[in-house]
Amino acid sequence: MTAKEKVALLRAEMQKNDIEAFIVYSADPHMSEYLPEEWKERSWISGFTGSAGFVVITKEQAGLWTDGRYFTQAPIELAGSGIDLYKDGIEGTPHYIDWIISQTSENAKVAVNALATSHANWDLLATKLEQNNRKLVDLPLLKNIWTERPSSGKNPIFVHPLERAGKSAADKIADIRQKMEEQSASIHIISSLDDVAWTLNLRGSDVECNPIFLAYITITKNETLLFTDLEKLTTEAHQAMEEAHVKILPYQEFFSYLEGISGESILISPNTNQSVYDTLKANNSFIVAPVPGNLMKAIKNETELKGFRTVMERDGVAIVKFLYWLTHTAGKEHLTEYSISERLRAFRAEGDNFMGESFGSIIGYQGNGAIIHYSPAKEGSAEVSNVGSILVDSGGQYLEGTTDITRTFPLGEISQEFKEDSTRVLQGLIRLSMVKFPKGTKGVQLDAFARLPLWQEGKDYNHGTGHGVGSFMNVHEGPQNIRKDMNPQELLPGMVVSNEPGYYVENKYGIRHENLIVVKEWKKTEWNTFYEFETLTFCPFFKNSIVKEMLSSDEIAWLNQYHKACEEKLAPHLEGDIKEWFLDLVSPL
Amino acid sequence: MTAKEKVALLRAEMQKNDIEAFIVYSADPHMSEYLPEEWKERSWISGFTGSAGFVVITKEQAGLWTDGRYFTQAPIELAGSGIDLYKDGIEGTPHYIDWIISQTSENAKVAVNALATSHANWDLLATKLEQNNRKLVDLPLLKNIWTERPSSGKNPIFVHPLERAGKSAADKIADIRQKMEEQSASIHIISSLDDVAWTLNLRGSDVECNPIFLAYITITKNETLLFTDLEKLTTEAHQAMEEAHVKILPYQEFFSYLEGISGESILISPNTNQSVYDTLKANNSFIVAPVPGNLMKAIKNETELKGFRTVMERDGVAIVKFLYWLTHTAGKEHLTEYSISERLRAFRAEGDNFMGESFGSIIGYQGNGAIIHYSPAKEGSAEVSNVGSILVDSGGQYLEGTTDITRTFPLGEISQEFKEDSTRVLQGLIRLSMVKFPKGTKGVQLDAFARLPLWQEGKDYNHGTGHGVGSFMNVHEGPQNIRKDMNPQELLPGMVVSNEPGYYVENKYGIRHENLIVVKEWKKTEWNTFYEFETLTFCPFFKNSIVKEMLSSDEIAWLNQYHKACEEKLAPHLEGDIKEWFLDLVSPL
Repeated sequence: MTAKEKVALLRAEMQKNDIEAFIVYSADPHMSEYLPEEWKERSWISGFTGSAGFVVITKEQAGLWTDGRYFTQAPIELAGSGIDLYKDGIEGTPHYIDWIISQTSENAKVAVNALATSHANWDLLATKLEQNNRKLVDLPLLKNIWTERPSSGKNPIFVHPLERAGKSAADKIADIRQKMEEQSASIHIISSLDDVAWTLNLRGSDVECNPIFLAYITITKNETLLFTDLEKLTTEAHQAMEEAHVKILPYQEFFSYLEGISGESILISPNTNQSVYDTLKANNSFIVAPVPGNLMKAIKNETELKGFRTVMERDGVAIVKFLYWLTHTAGKEHLTEYSISERLRAFRAEGDNFMGESFGSIIGYQGNGAIIHYSPAKEGSAEVSNVGSILVDSGGQYLEGTTDITRTFPLGEISQEFKEDSTRVLQGLIRLSMVKFPKGTKGVQLDAFARLPLWQEGKDYNHGTGHGVGSFMNVHEGPQNIRKDMNPQELLPGMVVSNEPGYYVENKYGIRHENLIVVKEWKKTEWNTFYEFETLTFCPFFKNSIVKEMLSSDEIAWLNQYHKACEEKLAPHLEGDIKEWFLDLVSPL
Repeated sequence: MTAKEKVALLRAEMQKNDIEAFIVYSADPHMSEYLPEEWKERSWISGFTGSAGFVVITKEQAGLWTDGRYFTQAPIELAGSGIDLYKDGIEGTPHYIDWIISQTSENAKVAVNALATSHANWDLLATKLEQNNRKLVDLPLLKNIWTERPSSGKNPIFVHPLERAGKSAADKIADIRQKMEEQSASIHIISSLDDVAWTLNLRGSDVECNPIFLAYITITKNETLLFTDLEKLTTEAHQAMEEAHVKILPYQEFFSYLEGISGESILISPNTNQSVYDTLKANNSFIVAPVPGNLMKAIKNETELKGFRTVMERDGVAIVKFLYWLTHTAGKEHLTEYSISERLRAFRAEGDNFMGESFGSIIGYQGNGAIIHYSPAKEGSAEVSNVGSILVDSGGQYLEGTTDITRTFPLGEISQEFKEDSTRVLQGLIRLSMVKFPKGTKGVQLDAFARLPLWQEGKDYNHGTGHGVGSFMNVHEGPQNIRKDMNPQELLPGMVVSNEPGYYVENKYGIRHENLIVVKEWKKTEWNTFYEFETLTFCPFFKNSIVKEMLSSDEIAWLNQYHKACEEKLAPHLEGDIKEWFLDLVSPL
């Protein structure tokens, strides 16, 4: 079936139900960053495969709203679908809600599938439509036309053992119950899949790159229920749940369980799907607040940090071997960005307990490096030779932890301009690495340290400086981050964040340098408790793209010390030509 | 009458009205920072004269809540009053609302004077009391017992002419009307006195240090009303109001005017007194939002900036003369912190158009420098000799603008520790002065640049880095600032802010270095429009308390360039020994 035919079928359903506009978000019932195959509704109906964007269908019109990352890809994938591209973030592009209002009549009904719409988003949309005399209704119209959905399969749900998690599921549930009591909640619902997996010390593989599985948890004072596919749990997982006093029920029974709840005070995240709210709202009250486990998950315990340190050594060795291979092969063999990403995965797979990539590798050669979320496709990715620079942003999932690292380096001759920009970005990374800060400090207070070397030249980068990273868990997690945005979450010891300033020159080059860092207590003084960052990632930066004169003596000292640490961690695992090359890389600047 | 007798009278009034607790805030109907004499109710009833703190009286108990600045002064002033001191910010001190609840019975009535309570505060208090089955009521009980109030007198209200304001009152009102229209407001009420004075290009002197006068403004589509004491306006001021089509009505008629309003949509700040809300709420709807003129006022126009630059030269000359005098007199004559503050005012008064201090000078010798809001009293302030350091934070009001400057400097031998701390604070000031930043940047993103040199030593300061400064107007104004707090107001060209990092060692010394800076456009790049700070204040820093080796070459270059600018601005106004001494001060480090 073509996209055009699918849209026609949807329009027929819309007409039957007296719906003037239907929105297909890119979402699942758990508001996941990566979608399970069966929830790729937006891709199915439109043919557009990007990670962000949604489609709105009206009687006569159809539009896809997506951002700058996909302005090249989207028109190609949408060709012949009858769906127009609306470029988000470009002046003149209508907001989709305004557009819907302009395309529908007074008192029109607009529909979404509430199961794939967050409560927060539903509220916003419903209010704005109501103010304009339109009504939002819940209708899962794609159910009737996308009947042959791929199944997420029977991927095993397995135990993330205590010696890697550092805290038992029973203890985590007890801590969550404590928070529920503080908030006077009688039931707590967890629907975000990383929070589910973290709480129960279970892992799965229902979506790419994230070791999670489709499930809900409900916690009351005396009972913990896990709603998931029972058949997927390994014997050990069943046993572990029994030990943690967690009762397992079929995923399909979640909503009928909710229907039986009444008179309860329900602690629930604004990011829970609207169907959950709709099912509960008549007979219960809500405490809409972040999932308490979310902050607990962000604060890594010593066992988890040990796991991070272990995998950083393993990942560092893989990356160094990859860097040696790439810098010695470019220009000699036929390479593409895609073939390089395959080779990179193979280097990682040589290590112990490798469970896959933590996200799709971003391998951007020359100008492609400037496309911030570039992901080389199998067909048509750029050929890579021994000219200019390449940006490699990648990560691995290991049983003991998760990695995320970016290095940008020359494969051949590079310009002075590139070197200087690369040095500025590195300087930003170093300055943030060196900062000490008092308890209570938020990411927004530190973000500019990473940007200032660029700001002083009238340059900047249009992305955050740091995101939280999970422990054998999603590579992006909250609640903390280091960004320009005013996130009220303070940075606390045990929080792992990325440190990834960048700089991008369209069609010429992209630069990003990224390490993972963790907040540690530095010292208590009469003023306050002060924190510092410990760098977790071990992999050298390329000295041949550093302008030494631009760095302060403190910055040079930091870099030399970092390279010495890289040597200590990685050199014992290397030998022969690679080791020799590596020792030169980590020699003092 | 003693405080004890006053409290007894109040308790009798409370009993008559069935009130179990009465709160006396330190506030006037305009939520001013400095209070007119007739509104110093808290001082009157308690005897406590500090700038912050409020009193709660119950049947049996009485308490003053104030902060660390007044923990020494308050017990002395409260002696014999029967009012206990509750130390705000100290662990174990109850929140005053919790305390009220604990001291009153179920369904008790708690009263305040709504005229001296902001709407925002009333809302908070009323909600919390209601949740605990207490009721908040409006009763101005002090009216009946403090009958002989000082009058604010007949200080003239005079014109701040166009050649200093840079924009006519009529144009300002037109701009405000434009904002009212955007917010669909039919009436706008201005009650904050600096916003009143700014809007109409009028100035007065009803409170110390702030060139403001007691008044309200109401603006409708066609009419602007000024409620104030008509007799106080000069002939020119009457004429100017006529030209600007502003009708003047007696201050006393404001509430009866409000009573006549109905069916209107009223744009009003949450900082307006609750009586205004109470008068209007039955028959009107509110748009509770910041006063639009507040942001307009913060963005200084070229005329106002010219005024700033003019007064900075004048103020700088006064300060340099003062510094010469003090450093050459300390140890030779009998000096106290108070006598020094008098002398400082005299140096300023030698300049043209001096209208008084912009705040009470903070002259902190040795350990007193560590008391952040220290203000030496006539009686009992410390004797000053030629040992150690002194902190001088002061400012002037001139017809052309307002100044605020702090210098901390040695009067005799100082420790290496002082020198190093002083250098770190100066380094913070310099780093913030040198920053370039893109459009959209908020103060919270820059604050840490001023703190980092201290943070790296486990040190910090417990106050903001920068506040807005008015143009011949209040020395503290919003909406922008540079603080740890997440203020969403971005920094915009024309905004004047202070740059005043500090460091304080209890009982030993306090250090603060402060310049005023203004946001300017630096350059437009392909990335964004970038801003920088221009330093407005001209006065050297003392090189004898700088450890040169701690500064980077960029920082030294900034300082030398700044001193060169000081020389260019101030040297032409100096002569003889002072000039010679000054030229040495500004010579390269």
